[in-house]
Amino acid sequence: MFTALDNHIQLSTELLMFDVLLILTILTIWLLRKRQIRCIHETGGAMLYGLILGLILKYTDRQWNKKALDVHGCESLNHTTPSLAANITLDNDRHKHVGEQMAFAPEVFFNVFLPPIIFQGAYSLNQRRLFQNSGSVLTFAFLGTIISCAVIGATMYGFVKLSVLLGQTRDGDFHLTDCLFFGALISATDPVSVLAIFTELRVDSNLYILLFGESVLNDAVAIVLTYAISTYSQSGGHHTFSVSAFFFSIGHFIAVFIGSLSIGLSFSIITALLTKFTRLSEFPLLETGLFFLLSWSAFLSAEACGLTGIVAVLFCGIAQARYTFHNLSTEAKTRTKQLFEFLNFLGENFIFCYMGLALFTFQNHNFKGIFLSGAFLSIFLARACNIYPLTYLLNIGRKEKIPANVQHMMMFSGLRGAVAFALAVRDTCTVARRTILSTTLMLVFFTVWVLGGATSPMLAWLDIRVGVDPDEDKGGQASDQVKSAENNTGEDGTPAHAASAPEGQTQASRTPGVWHKLDKNYLRPALTHSGPPLTSTLPVWCEPLGRLLTSPHAYENRERLNDTEADCSSVKLDTAGEDKGAPEGDAETVTEPAHQDDLLEGDLGLGHCADPNWKE
Amino acid sequence: MFTALDNHIQLSTELLMFDVLLILTILTIWLLRKRQIRCIHETGGAMLYGLILGLILKYTDRQWNKKALDVHGCESLNHTTPSLAANITLDNDRHKHVGEQMAFAPEVFFNVFLPPIIFQGAYSLNQRRLFQNSGSVLTFAFLGTIISCAVIGATMYGFVKLSVLLGQTRDGDFHLTDCLFFGALISATDPVSVLAIFTELRVDSNLYILLFGESVLNDAVAIVLTYAISTYSQSGGHHTFSVSAFFFSIGHFIAVFIGSLSIGLSFSIITALLTKFTRLSEFPLLETGLFFLLSWSAFLSAEACGLTGIVAVLFCGIAQARYTFHNLSTEAKTRTKQLFEFLNFLGENFIFCYMGLALFTFQNHNFKGIFLSGAFLSIFLARACNIYPLTYLLNIGRKEKIPANVQHMMMFSGLRGAVAFALAVRDTCTVARRTILSTTLMLVFFTVWVLGGATSPMLAWLDIRVGVDPDEDKGGQASDQVKSAENNTGEDGTPAHAASAPEGQTQASRTPGVWHKLDKNYLRPALTHSGPPLTSTLPVWCEPLGRLLTSPHAYENRERLNDTEADCSSVKLDTAGEDKGAPEGDAETVTEPAHQDDLLEGDLGLGHCADPNWKE
Repeated sequence: MFTALDNHIQLSTELLMFDVLLILTILTIWLLRKRQIRCIHETGGAMLYGLILGLILKYTDRQWNKKALDVHGCESLNHTTPSLAANITLDNDRHKHVGEQMAFAPEVFFNVFLPPIIFQGAYSLNQRRLFQNSGSVLTFAFLGTIISCAVIGATMYGFVKLSVLLGQTRDGDFHLTDCLFFGALISATDPVSVLAIFTELRVDSNLYILLFGESVLNDAVAIVLTYAISTYSQSGGHHTFSVSAFFFSIGHFIAVFIGSLSIGLSFSIITALLTKFTRLSEFPLLETGLFFLLSWSAFLSAEACGLTGIVAVLFCGIAQARYTFHNLSTEAKTRTKQLFEFLNFLGENFIFCYMGLALFTFQNHNFKGIFLSGAFLSIFLARACNIYPLTYLLNIGRKEKIPANVQHMMMFSGLRGAVAFALAVRDTCTVARRTILSTTLMLVFFTVWVLGGATSPMLAWLDIRVGVDPDEDKGGQASDQVKSAENNTGEDGTPAHAASAPEGQTQASRTPGVWHKLDKNYLRPALTHSGPPLTSTLPVWCEPLGRLLTSPHAYENRERLNDTEADCSSVKLDTAGEDKGAPEGDAETVTEPAHQDDLLEGDLGLGHCADPNWKE
Repeated sequence: MFTALDNHIQLSTELLMFDVLLILTILTIWLLRKRQIRCIHETGGAMLYGLILGLILKYTDRQWNKKALDVHGCESLNHTTPSLAANITLDNDRHKHVGEQMAFAPEVFFNVFLPPIIFQGAYSLNQRRLFQNSGSVLTFAFLGTIISCAVIGATMYGFVKLSVLLGQTRDGDFHLTDCLFFGALISATDPVSVLAIFTELRVDSNLYILLFGESVLNDAVAIVLTYAISTYSQSGGHHTFSVSAFFFSIGHFIAVFIGSLSIGLSFSIITALLTKFTRLSEFPLLETGLFFLLSWSAFLSAEACGLTGIVAVLFCGIAQARYTFHNLSTEAKTRTKQLFEFLNFLGENFIFCYMGLALFTFQNHNFKGIFLSGAFLSIFLARACNIYPLTYLLNIGRKEKIPANVQHMMMFSGLRGAVAFALAVRDTCTVARRTILSTTLMLVFFTVWVLGGATSPMLAWLDIRVGVDPDEDKGGQASDQVKSAENNTGEDGTPAHAASAPEGQTQASRTPGVWHKLDKNYLRPALTHSGPPLTSTLPVWCEPLGRLLTSPHAYENRERLNDTEADCSSVKLDTAGEDKGAPEGDAETVTEPAHQDDLLEGDLGLGHCADPNWKE
């Protein structure tokens, strides 16, 4: 009985410590914001407090050294349960030392903290900007991440060989797959710090969406890549190159990615249809609950199928924002936005606190000088190999080129954060994996503190336009924007930024032709209340289905949404009414027919918009 | 690796099952509300789905039977860790059977689901009504719960003796302390179902606050009582009456209660001062985060000190609503309200789902006919011994008596729910405790389905006034109320009800004299921006402290809040502005001096308001 009581007290004390850290972080954030200090970012503050607590625990509580994080790293992948939360194994001899067994199971990051963070990233993406730049964003997220992974992997392998030659590493400790594994996980860039500063400074919105879109999507790619590399090494390719294992892991990568994506989208479709056809909007609490639970289902279903929940939740978030969001009541729009903003805020700060703590409390750190310097070199090299060649290629296809200063800023903005850490902490059984965790931690600290802190001066130095005024745009929807901006009350940045971007510009119609048609004629009418009615767009033999799925509103909206004759001014009111509080301050694709002439069939969404804010 | 993967998949599947249950529950709630069906309550629906899932698991997954809930019941009190969430021990032989080890550690209820539920109960209490009726509510909560515990304990002991005589129970299986333990836990009445119906039907607001206040506060009393009884049995009083153990447990009860209460209030004071003196209100997200984390700190600190977190969080919630709430920005008011409403909604439905599931999946059920019938008899007997004598005594002191039909309704409204279950499931090591869990489950089912379902006809039969119109009150603050009601967008009932109660009546000044003065002259000026300034109310030697704590606003408000000359109409605007979105649609105590003459010194808040809605 007393053991249980003591354990209970200990657990409470540990949670209380994190709680206090988060409270301190909040107060620090407030001070930083009040004094407009931009050289330390909020997440940097959280890490600092974590570090301090870690130091205190290390030097006041010597027993702490005996057992810690590492235990869970191995157990969780080998035989114990991936617990939903604090999975604290107990050592009855020493259970009185506070913090001694404080160790959140690595799975916690994946199952509890990451999903809302990723979802919020996707949910608060500026949809229109994203689809305008979808080609570029996808290129950076997919090709860029794979390039980055390969470059880092190869560089690190070189450094490992060097280390073996110098006798600092035993041959066999590091395989090529370990290096690639590191390359994959460290390629996941974090949207947190840089983008918060971008929001505050109202930086050019195309730069913003390129970086935000890239960092959100490349998390998914990096996660699936690490799985694929694990699969590869397990299927016989650990030491030498195995063709079958290589193709198997490529197949695995594609299958997992597409499978997870499909599950995410399926749950969005279910949510959209449920919110469209039930009158749930009379009860915003139920609506919010349903929205939350169905989005979480996307994560759980993917995990239950052995796929990647994070990827599912990412695409679920994008689709929820694009379709379901417009079926929600005004209040549920605000509620869902605020709920995920809150979960994201707490989760993010918790993870950064925890990273700070982990530096001193993780017992099996393995800091290898050569590996570390190799890692520092390689992430810059990889970022350069990613950004410059890809922008060169993209600029060939883009009407409006990505200028050099924006390229340099993108090169500079590759911060690492929660996802990289979560991937690294998942498995710390071998020397290689422990070295990877230690190196990842150092890279996170460096990029968040140094690169993050230098963002503001860097913007000035690169002469990138800040303080972009949302009223400057030429679309003439200023009133709409003001409404959206008013509703964008969140201050964590992203939604507010989205609203302050030059939203009114009618560039949505420049999104890729095929996708645009599919979205406008079939997906939106099927999943939301907007027109044109499906009965008019679907082939005749689909008539019954069309009638079933078409909302009565769609018939009413038939003319105004018919993309060629619609009158912008007549549309405005409805849009403002319907999309009040839209997370991306969304003025709908279908309501913006004025620039139809700009739409080029087959254009891959390379974002060639004639944005007056871009400097060539 | 594959074991871990399988476990992970299994955990995801289990969570997915709960997730789906909750989604079904939400859709059912929507249907029930839409069709205005009141005979099945929402929580009843959640239980039903849990039952069905339990049945399916029981008969489709036979391995389920081997391991289940019971393991954790004992472990959690004896040697394993009280895990924060799903604490699933694994049996590698049979890890493929879905649901086999599905068992949330009982501690989860206490550490994760209960705190927000209790906090929300306290936070959404109609403060003014509560303080008007504080004497009555406290009498029911404290004396009533102790009477109820004693009556149930004694009755059950009689039935146990009978059972031993009949040879159905072994002598020694049940001690008197077990019976009292059962009496204490089953005395915790649940505010959920009945009050939701009360809200919907807009029942008399005094009946509402009596029942709501009682059910919120008696949870605290019941929890501390169960601890005290456990302490008693551990300190040597297991078999016979031990004077020292008795007094020790009484001392324990008082110490734990007062300690927990103090911690809860301390954290409210910290929150109030932080929100008062920082300009955190510019960042509603930070404000909400701070509010949430500090309230959670109250829980964790109490637990870390070996006290009762639930009690701390209860009083923290009451004080947060009374003080901190008024320092929050308008947006943070809404956000905190909605956040806790959401957590409460999910937590409550989860617990009721889980209870349904537990009926079929808990493996060591011990249904004893005699114990069960004794329990049914005793809860009614105890409720009668609680309500009728206490109302008789209270009516002596109350100006406006509690009429007989209201007494009958109170007698009828003693539903049992989350707290009783959480207390029962915490420890299932002995036969007695297992019997208690099974019996508690049956009582919860019975009271929620039968008593909850019959609430609506019962109200009609007892001729209790429903559809009380908030505009009927005579305080002349209708405009204020409309504003409050508009802001009370929550539909889970309690806040909305609070707003629809005759709030405008200026009865606040009838709260007990000493408390009223303390609150008005010292606490509110110190913790919020309202006047009179502390410098004018504190003794001269406290002047520096007074100056430190007094907000500049308080000086501005000096006249209008000076309680004797204030002009109601001049106050109205400010109140409406400041308290927009107040959880209780609160028109401030201090702004309502008109009925000052009604204030009787030494009055114990027995709620003798001349409410025109009460029928004598």
